Amino acid sequence: MPKLTPLLAVTAGDPDGIGPEAALAAYKAINELNIARLILIGCPSAFEKASRSTGISIPPCITPNEIPEKIGLIPIEPASHDLAGRGSHVLSQLRLAVDLAISGKARSLTTGPARKDAFAAAGEPFSGHTELLARWTGSQTPVMMMYGPKLKVIPLTTHVPLMNVANLLSIDLIVEKLRIAERDTRRYFGIKAPKFAVTSLNPHAGEGGNIGKEEFEIFSPAIAELKKLGLDISGPFPADSLFASGWRNFDVIACPYHDQALIPFKMVHFKDGVNVTLGLPFIRTAPDHGTAEDIAFTGKADPSSMIAAARLAADIATRIF
Amino acid sequence: MPKLTPLLAVTAGDPDGIGPEAALAAYKAINELNIARLILIGCPSAFEKASRSTGISIPPCITPNEIPEKIGLIPIEPASHDLAGRGSHVLSQLRLAVDLAISGKARSLTTGPARKDAFAAAGEPFSGHTELLARWTGSQTPVMMMYGPKLKVIPLTTHVPLMNVANLLSIDLIVEKLRIAERDTRRYFGIKAPKFAVTSLNPHAGEGGNIGKEEFEIFSPAIAELKKLGLDISGPFPADSLFASGWRNFDVIACPYHDQALIPFKMVHFKDGVNVTLGLPFIRTAPDHGTAEDIAFTGKADPSSMIAAARLAADIATRIF
Repeated sequence: MPKLTPLLAVTAGDPDGIGPEAALAAYKAINELNIARLILIGCPSAFEKASRSTGISIPPCITPNEIPEKIGLIPIEPASHDLAGRGSHVLSQLRLAVDLAISGKARSLTTGPARKDAFAAAGEPFSGHTELLARWTGSQTPVMMMYGPKLKVIPLTTHVPLMNVANLLSIDLIVEKLRIAERDTRRYFGIKAPKFAVTSLNPHAGEGGNIGKEEFEIFSPAIAELKKLGLDISGPFPADSLFASGWRNFDVIACPYHDQALIPFKMVHFKDGVNVTLGLPFIRTAPDHGTAEDIAFTGKADPSSMIAAARLAADIATRIF
Repeated sequence: MPKLTPLLAVTAGDPDGIGPEAALAAYKAINELNIARLILIGCPSAFEKASRSTGISIPPCITPNEIPEKIGLIPIEPASHDLAGRGSHVLSQLRLAVDLAISGKARSLTTGPARKDAFAAAGEPFSGHTELLARWTGSQTPVMMMYGPKLKVIPLTTHVPLMNVANLLSIDLIVEKLRIAERDTRRYFGIKAPKFAVTSLNPHAGEGGNIGKEEFEIFSPAIAELKKLGLDISGPFPADSLFASGWRNFDVIACPYHDQALIPFKMVHFKDGVNVTLGLPFIRTAPDHGTAEDIAFTGKADPSSMIAAARLAADIATRIF
């Protein structure tokens, strides 16, 4: 009997965004590749609209109890289409998906785009998917990685005001995040001796302390400690110089804040970037775009990133189980 | 009689860095293009070493009084080769070059790379070229632009610690810098109706105020005022999204801080970027690299950026005089 391909959970995300269309496209693409079996979780009427705009057939509705014999769509209807209703609908998708992943029924979770303000309206303030999944699973240190075949970056702080970044950084935070990153880079991507670089907080790496002190107070001690722990890591490098050319010599670049990591990442991986969360008890991937309601159900949404997210989840699941 | 090409001053910068080699290469390249006449200012023994490593003949020594009949090298010997001696040598180069530019003998100034710590050791603390030239010429608001044929960016704050950026930004600063930028973009580059974009300080443009307040307290009011003044300007845009694709729709992108502007700039213009200072009483350009002492006088220095800087100064001088 041939080995079964891994079973992956995919939430469609906001029912009024491009998630249902992207999830449908991912379902079709992964089926054709025959590398995994997808369980979609979302609103059946949103999937009907998505099916009309994309021309892709809607999968059959199933219940969680029919897993793993059947694959298809586990239906969850929104209570209402205001922000709170959409937020609580996505929270219901996620609760079910986390149950499947934690119980081992699904080997990974790929999340379609949702809105933070919808989570907030539904009573989950100031949270994105990553923070929510970390809290629900008791994970102390989720690590956001933007994954692409050419470039992988880790923003050490994520969705915070720029003025708070310096105060959020510490030796402990950098050491903890990079230990997790190194472990999961080996496990998830099969890179046996990953090379890490760290970029500096301040311009020109602080120019010997003339432009900020964080480089020698925080970054250099953290990198020294990580070297002692056996990591192949160097820095802090001025970010503009490193991303001009040297980045190709490293497997993963850790950056102190969101834009420093995401600008070069999106310039290299405009369409095929994937958001991977390390440090969770299960594999989690997501596309790198938002809900884009303005083009939802018009057939204009580009599903490349969602397909790449499902495909990466399949690759990782195949590698580590 | 044919019209004379413009006369441009070029300082070699630090006598122990790659500036003398790059200046020599620029002298040769601009002579061959026959678009301008260069006056080099620097240490003659450094130029002799540079001539040996590059194989380019050293130009004849001249005095400022021989301008404009003769072009060549105006010699200034460093008093010593410690940091203070190198700093005061570069300051002497610059004083002479500014005299030539202010008096109209030279139509522009292209500065070779120098070290801020050498300026500091020579009694000019915490200053780079731009700040120094602004102070010496009584210019209130120098505007740093990184110029490339494809992408032009303006960092609204420059060499300051990241944690200070938010407090340095104000409506007045953004309005003032962009008024100067618009005027000089028209004059210098001949762009008749330049289109400007502004990127946001915080990730996701602050996500409606959930990730910082600067977007609606500072950026949106400044952009509204600039629109009233007649500028074609829009934003604030999330920087990672704008640099992923939309940047090609704009002539100039203004960014709140150094790395946000310089990372995408150097990814697009790795070798041919030029630093232009707007808002000075004369044209000033510079290469986008440092002194790189480790490869000085080995022939390994890439003079592309210095040549591009001299060439851009020639283009601007030809356009505006």
